[in-house]
Amino acid sequence: MSDHMINHRGPEFFELITECTEKLKQVFMTENDLFILTSSGTGALEASIVNTLSPGDKVLAASAGSFGDRYADLLDAYGAEVTRITFEWGEPIDPDGIRQGLKDDPEIKAVIVTHNETSTGVTHDLQSIASVVKGEFGKLLLVDAVSSLGCVPLPVDGWDCDVVSTGSQKGFMIPPGLAFISFGRDAWEAQKEAAMPRFYFDLEEAKKYLDRGQTPWTPNLSAMYGLRAALENIMDEGMEGVFGRHASIGQFTRDGVRAMGLELLCADEARASNTVTAVKMPIHIDGEQMMEIMRTEENVVLAGGQGKLTGHIFRIGIWATLNEEHIQEVLDALGRVLPRVGF
Amino acid sequence: MSDHMINHRGPEFFELITECTEKLKQVFMTENDLFILTSSGTGALEASIVNTLSPGDKVLAASAGSFGDRYADLLDAYGAEVTRITFEWGEPIDPDGIRQGLKDDPEIKAVIVTHNETSTGVTHDLQSIASVVKGEFGKLLLVDAVSSLGCVPLPVDGWDCDVVSTGSQKGFMIPPGLAFISFGRDAWEAQKEAAMPRFYFDLEEAKKYLDRGQTPWTPNLSAMYGLRAALENIMDEGMEGVFGRHASIGQFTRDGVRAMGLELLCADEARASNTVTAVKMPIHIDGEQMMEIMRTEENVVLAGGQGKLTGHIFRIGIWATLNEEHIQEVLDALGRVLPRVGF
Repeated sequence: MSDHMINHRGPEFFELITECTEKLKQVFMTENDLFILTSSGTGALEASIVNTLSPGDKVLAASAGSFGDRYADLLDAYGAEVTRITFEWGEPIDPDGIRQGLKDDPEIKAVIVTHNETSTGVTHDLQSIASVVKGEFGKLLLVDAVSSLGCVPLPVDGWDCDVVSTGSQKGFMIPPGLAFISFGRDAWEAQKEAAMPRFYFDLEEAKKYLDRGQTPWTPNLSAMYGLRAALENIMDEGMEGVFGRHASIGQFTRDGVRAMGLELLCADEARASNTVTAVKMPIHIDGEQMMEIMRTEENVVLAGGQGKLTGHIFRIGIWATLNEEHIQEVLDALGRVLPRVGF
Repeated sequence: MSDHMINHRGPEFFELITECTEKLKQVFMTENDLFILTSSGTGALEASIVNTLSPGDKVLAASAGSFGDRYADLLDAYGAEVTRITFEWGEPIDPDGIRQGLKDDPEIKAVIVTHNETSTGVTHDLQSIASVVKGEFGKLLLVDAVSSLGCVPLPVDGWDCDVVSTGSQKGFMIPPGLAFISFGRDAWEAQKEAAMPRFYFDLEEAKKYLDRGQTPWTPNLSAMYGLRAALENIMDEGMEGVFGRHASIGQFTRDGVRAMGLELLCADEARASNTVTAVKMPIHIDGEQMMEIMRTEENVVLAGGQGKLTGHIFRIGIWATLNEEHIQEVLDALGRVLPRVGF
């Protein structure tokens, strides 16, 4: 990431963006168009909405956590007519609920869903959801994969996901500052009529520039250098290796937490996330104090709960280059700190 | 920029964003709100529009180059009713033209203008423009300062500029990936009624988060580490030092180019940019070939012309840490290469 700057309209950048885009498609397991945006993951989510929909379009938003809610808020901001189907935070989204929602209103044009809900530590059953949305109803499927892509299986073409958005700072193991979005055939069809206003996140413009190895606006070059290196690592390991590693460390984390007498927020082991583990805060424990001691004395930064889960859970992120030794250190630190706060 | 990642909802980030924001205000010479966005400069320009205007609002867009045109395109994309006042590319925007435009249509709500037109090497007379727009007519003034801020004087409060946007990769001497925007009192007044849709670039949301030392979305942390270091350098040198250095190297570049028998695009020396020098391509010279030899044999990357200036000019960027020795190397290389292509 410390390489010197290059002309982003020149031949060196052409090579950089071409290599990154081709390898990203392998991680996304897609032949769809794929764009690198200079923004955080939320920028890609905005792109997924404004490039496919018009104000007034009916959209089904399935959510079981704060990131699912945020994606739906984005629809509201741009004037879509949103039907929200919500599930208990900590539980998986039920594909039957989506099926019912689509039956109830045939005018619904698209469904948005979060693959891995970072706020609750649940990986939703995207494969089943996609088979309902695309297979049964032929609706547009927009997926927030910020905390899943490059960690757990998400074969974009295999599951037929029209638009999939993610960020650089989780599965891709580099700092935040880039977002990636795949955009399929049905999405381009929708784009032709999509009347929501867009400029910075206009993917038609991005496609024109990508065809000549550029981005419309000045790109985050440093992060792209990091991305190139990260993608080489991922290609060397292979996607099956990446998924196996995350599955193994996810299991290790959950087993370790339960062995300490703690309870997971997600009771459904088959849907427990392999990228973030959400742990119920034991009652009578001051979570703020616990996390503060962990941070200042143990050098372990845990995340608290968001929204209505504030104070009720803490979360352990297990993305990217973390290994079992790191997680064991976290568990050992928890073993020292929790008794001090009354557990 | 290689520092390890931190929790962007934690106390270390609070310190980072607070320090950067306070020092950015000193560079902007403003007490207005100031936001750090994870995007390129165009993202800040989009923020300037969508946070102040509604679809159908009448806006005067003054332009004399491709970046001025791009800013106006952004207004079109979001449904503003745009009156374009255009000036010859290579000439400064005439404040009288803006005065006439505002007289002609009292319903105009805002004026957009590019301070330094990178495509032509002209620094427009923003002080006079602001005195017309704000002083005489009391309209909202939105300024694209991507290639001027932190290089040439732009006292945001002194000139009463409501919204000023810039990027990280020019005056701030760090890689692209961050944008900065100042947002003043009249802009907040306009924001209350601004109905353009916004989410990623919603500054009301950004303000809520900034008040607790955060950003709404995951920020480009690496670039913020670089920004902190760059701002320390700028503070050490002082704004007068920064401006004096750019004025001196701008003059050095223009004198050197003219001494070679070349002609500048900007005939008005008082308005020639101190951050980019646009040089007329001598007739009968193959500019593509000349720039290719410069790049491959002399390791000097020049920029060509954009839009209707393609093939007619080449440009020398003189931002940031470049010194006279660097420019002398560019001039020496030009002295070797130009005769080879027939000059």
